[in-house]
Amino acid sequence: MATRRSASLRRLCIAVAAAAALAPALVPGLAAAAGDAGTYGLGHDLQQHSPLKQVNRATVKHLVPVWNLSLSNNYPQETQPLVIGGVMYATTTDATVALDARSGRQLWRTPVNLPQDVFAEGCCGSHNRGAAAYDGKLFRGTLDAFVVALDLKTGKELWRQQAANYKDGYSMTGAPMVAGGVLITGIAGGEYGTRGFLDGWEPATGKHLWRRYTTAAPDEPGGDTWVGDNYLRGGGATWLTGSYDPDLDLVFWGVGNGGPWNPALRNSGAQPHDNLYICSAIAIRPKTGEIAWHYQFSPNDPFDYDGTNELVLADLKVGGQMRKVILQANRNGFFYVLDRATGKPLAANPFIDRINWAKGIDLASGRPIDTELTTRIKQAPEMAQPEQIFPASFGGKNWSPMSYDPRERLAYANTLNWGYVYRTEKQEQSKGQWFIAVDFSGWVWPADGKRGFLKAIDPLTGKARWQVESDIPYMGGVLSTDGGLVFTGAQTGEFMAFDSHTGKKLWQFQTGSGIVGIPTTWELNGRQYITVASGIGGAYSLFAADPRLNNVPTGGSLWTFALIDGK
Amino acid sequence: MATRRSASLRRLCIAVAAAAALAPALVPGLAAAAGDAGTYGLGHDLQQHSPLKQVNRATVKHLVPVWNLSLSNNYPQETQPLVIGGVMYATTTDATVALDARSGRQLWRTPVNLPQDVFAEGCCGSHNRGAAAYDGKLFRGTLDAFVVALDLKTGKELWRQQAANYKDGYSMTGAPMVAGGVLITGIAGGEYGTRGFLDGWEPATGKHLWRRYTTAAPDEPGGDTWVGDNYLRGGGATWLTGSYDPDLDLVFWGVGNGGPWNPALRNSGAQPHDNLYICSAIAIRPKTGEIAWHYQFSPNDPFDYDGTNELVLADLKVGGQMRKVILQANRNGFFYVLDRATGKPLAANPFIDRINWAKGIDLASGRPIDTELTTRIKQAPEMAQPEQIFPASFGGKNWSPMSYDPRERLAYANTLNWGYVYRTEKQEQSKGQWFIAVDFSGWVWPADGKRGFLKAIDPLTGKARWQVESDIPYMGGVLSTDGGLVFTGAQTGEFMAFDSHTGKKLWQFQTGSGIVGIPTTWELNGRQYITVASGIGGAYSLFAADPRLNNVPTGGSLWTFALIDGK
Repeated sequence: MATRRSASLRRLCIAVAAAAALAPALVPGLAAAAGDAGTYGLGHDLQQHSPLKQVNRATVKHLVPVWNLSLSNNYPQETQPLVIGGVMYATTTDATVALDARSGRQLWRTPVNLPQDVFAEGCCGSHNRGAAAYDGKLFRGTLDAFVVALDLKTGKELWRQQAANYKDGYSMTGAPMVAGGVLITGIAGGEYGTRGFLDGWEPATGKHLWRRYTTAAPDEPGGDTWVGDNYLRGGGATWLTGSYDPDLDLVFWGVGNGGPWNPALRNSGAQPHDNLYICSAIAIRPKTGEIAWHYQFSPNDPFDYDGTNELVLADLKVGGQMRKVILQANRNGFFYVLDRATGKPLAANPFIDRINWAKGIDLASGRPIDTELTTRIKQAPEMAQPEQIFPASFGGKNWSPMSYDPRERLAYANTLNWGYVYRTEKQEQSKGQWFIAVDFSGWVWPADGKRGFLKAIDPLTGKARWQVESDIPYMGGVLSTDGGLVFTGAQTGEFMAFDSHTGKKLWQFQTGSGIVGIPTTWELNGRQYITVASGIGGAYSLFAADPRLNNVPTGGSLWTFALIDGK
Repeated sequence: MATRRSASLRRLCIAVAAAAALAPALVPGLAAAAGDAGTYGLGHDLQQHSPLKQVNRATVKHLVPVWNLSLSNNYPQETQPLVIGGVMYATTTDATVALDARSGRQLWRTPVNLPQDVFAEGCCGSHNRGAAAYDGKLFRGTLDAFVVALDLKTGKELWRQQAANYKDGYSMTGAPMVAGGVLITGIAGGEYGTRGFLDGWEPATGKHLWRRYTTAAPDEPGGDTWVGDNYLRGGGATWLTGSYDPDLDLVFWGVGNGGPWNPALRNSGAQPHDNLYICSAIAIRPKTGEIAWHYQFSPNDPFDYDGTNELVLADLKVGGQMRKVILQANRNGFFYVLDRATGKPLAANPFIDRINWAKGIDLASGRPIDTELTTRIKQAPEMAQPEQIFPASFGGKNWSPMSYDPRERLAYANTLNWGYVYRTEKQEQSKGQWFIAVDFSGWVWPADGKRGFLKAIDPLTGKARWQVESDIPYMGGVLSTDGGLVFTGAQTGEFMAFDSHTGKKLWQFQTGSGIVGIPTTWELNGRQYITVASGIGGAYSLFAADPRLNNVPTGGSLWTFALIDGK
């Protein structure tokens, strides 16, 4: 049976070989065309890699903007647009827009009507990272924590469901996903004394199918990793988007920091509690939300090292054997390779130069080896003196997705290179307010000014094949292609292409505002297009107080590039 | 003496021939470089024409955006940026920005701090059309009717003067000009029962030098064209920018509609009063504001036919003789050629197809020949029935500047092709409110849907050499070049280049929002650049209720184009 199935598959593959090569992001249930970019992450593997190669090392010098569309607001544009059947869909904080992908002409724009006081909430600004498309509908979250389904053709709202109350500090900024026929959404608000969760919804109707809380209750597995009812305000937000392996029928989702950050407040006496499933990857069954396995990157995390960063699916040779793995460049500074079926760590090595919270990761136990500093902090509800922690709460890599090039077996990631001044303190919880019980009073910038590096990382060693330094760190997502190009954007507005072999910058274009969004690429009628949103904002802009950004104007717009006609 | 002077000039011309050819816009008092675009209108002649020709009919297919800068707001962008010594300056309603012209990187941004209630005022939206540069300073007006001087290098405000009180209905939207060492500013607010004027200021200090009211007081020449104290609320706004002939030392400025529009309320019984200087061109001495001559296009105008449209200076052969003339495509539908020294009309012919307010212009008397309809309306303070008037209050051409190509002897103008339903009525004046005493209840659109035509107009006949129709009319300014190209923008966002000989569209680019601004071109280090602001809004957008603009997003940005590297 297996053999026959493989043979059938092979024939099918031959028949549609060209199309398949151009379809990195076939959307289940959608009449997706070859060349579409129909899912967040360019496929449920979140590889952010495309086989398209019309734009390549040789031709990229002919890459020019082909259109622009104003997004009519000054919010940060952290979104990744989708392209399905010649129509592009993009989300912003205050609207969802559809446009003709070839001409850039807007087809519809559906406002998100938000209560005015929602803008006081939300940890890191008012943004939205994207949508999911399925069966004629577009699904997105809203800053006031609703899930909304729109008609792909008209933008008409088909249903909306409230996932949580924004007045409690919840918000929804990540792109939903559809896996196994179920719409799955995460939630943000880990700094607000909330309890994280994932929700499953019926795409057609919005019917609520299941909820999986990401802090374990006393009667659940992992419940013993919490003290008392701390789990009820224990964080574990799920504010980015998961990946999906249809063969295993498992969704992999990263879980955020514990709440409050101050770990001693989550412990009892001198004994650290892991606080499952904060700072973890969890594998869930999409139809039920059942947890199949978990792996905790940073047990009892004190440092805001969310485990939310994208969990990229890849096939990788480990110890001479091909393995189905998950890759993650964790905020805590280690690059993890996990077995996809079990969550067992296969490799975990630093991908940044300076880490002082752990000496390394013990692969046998799967646990980090805390430094004396971390051990001490986990027992100190109120530190007498602040300490410098590396990496900072921004992490060795922030939220914006890396790409993974399966041919080169390299991950391309915007990495960060600074620490922060950290001191635990007492804090009373107040509904809808930040509740972290930590004073973080300053950033420890590198003396040489190199705050960021775009790195080509070997997943198994964490080492960089090449790196590009940036004084103002790149905070946008990364796209790589079979054209041998790595695309990312600068906070000063330049959208850039680098040679995937050397890191040499081959091309750039100034997009009018800073880039913190996620590039994508797609093909229509034989022409390859590359799209990115421009619009400064986000965590670095809000918290880093970098005066070099003072002359980067706000203002959101969508950009699409292609080779100039005739090239 | 004259001969010697000419000889010296010729030698000078030979010495700087190349530079001169590239310097259409030398700014007096500024260290302007060849290739600068240092004045509104690309020179004090307001020709909007450039001798640059690197971008031409053959090369324009290689024209691509080289950078974009977000203007961070959703106001209409009606501005024309200036480029001086490698730095671009642009105005918006809420800020003035300077940027590196080559890279598009912002150098400074100085906010305009406006009182919140100013946005309730202003006839046609919140916009700003540009600045003047002189002696190290940038001068601009503000929506609350201040004149502001900024340091060109730093953006620091050096002085500000209040021209009028915005609470009375005054505002300032046009670009100032500097002529004969005097800064001259106009004023808007002709729909608010105001009295128009021009002001002269000392550029260095902001000292007020003179004011010239544009409705004549009883003791002034022209005072007998008004009844009683009607002149005190008689309109005559001066909301666009003048031209300047340094040889004659005359500034030419267009004066707006009468207030209220209802002409019978400005008359006494059956006898129409001309109401000087409404709907006129006036020639003034820049040092004193003294009126040297005037020419009234639309005496006792009922129809909102402002005479404010740009007064373009040209040398033109009229009746076999070279004449120094002024060209204007007036809102009233006639294209005027005036003698520059005297104001005497040399030609006045229709440039649109349908005009029903006048049968023509009598060149001997200089007066229009009113139709029976107009004669009747001028005597009817309260019409029983509405009438259809052609052209509409938008005019045969709205405010956005045409260009004039001195080689082709053609004016390229975005012309408008509709009428409106008009009925005079009684209205009490109320401070700071619209005071027009006319009910204009609808637009009379052309049956074939062709609301606009970009026309190449022969100034002496008003006839079009060619025309390009547009269903949604083009409302932006026009630029022409020695490259044989005519540039303008569409309200749907396309920035376009047409062949100046045929009107064939050779190129376009979608700029993200609608274009209502004024393109310009400049040269730096041997490369020709073309710049235009994008950002929908303005009179058509506000008043025409055109549903086809519903999917044109707001959002201001600056665009600069050049030939792709290597072309």
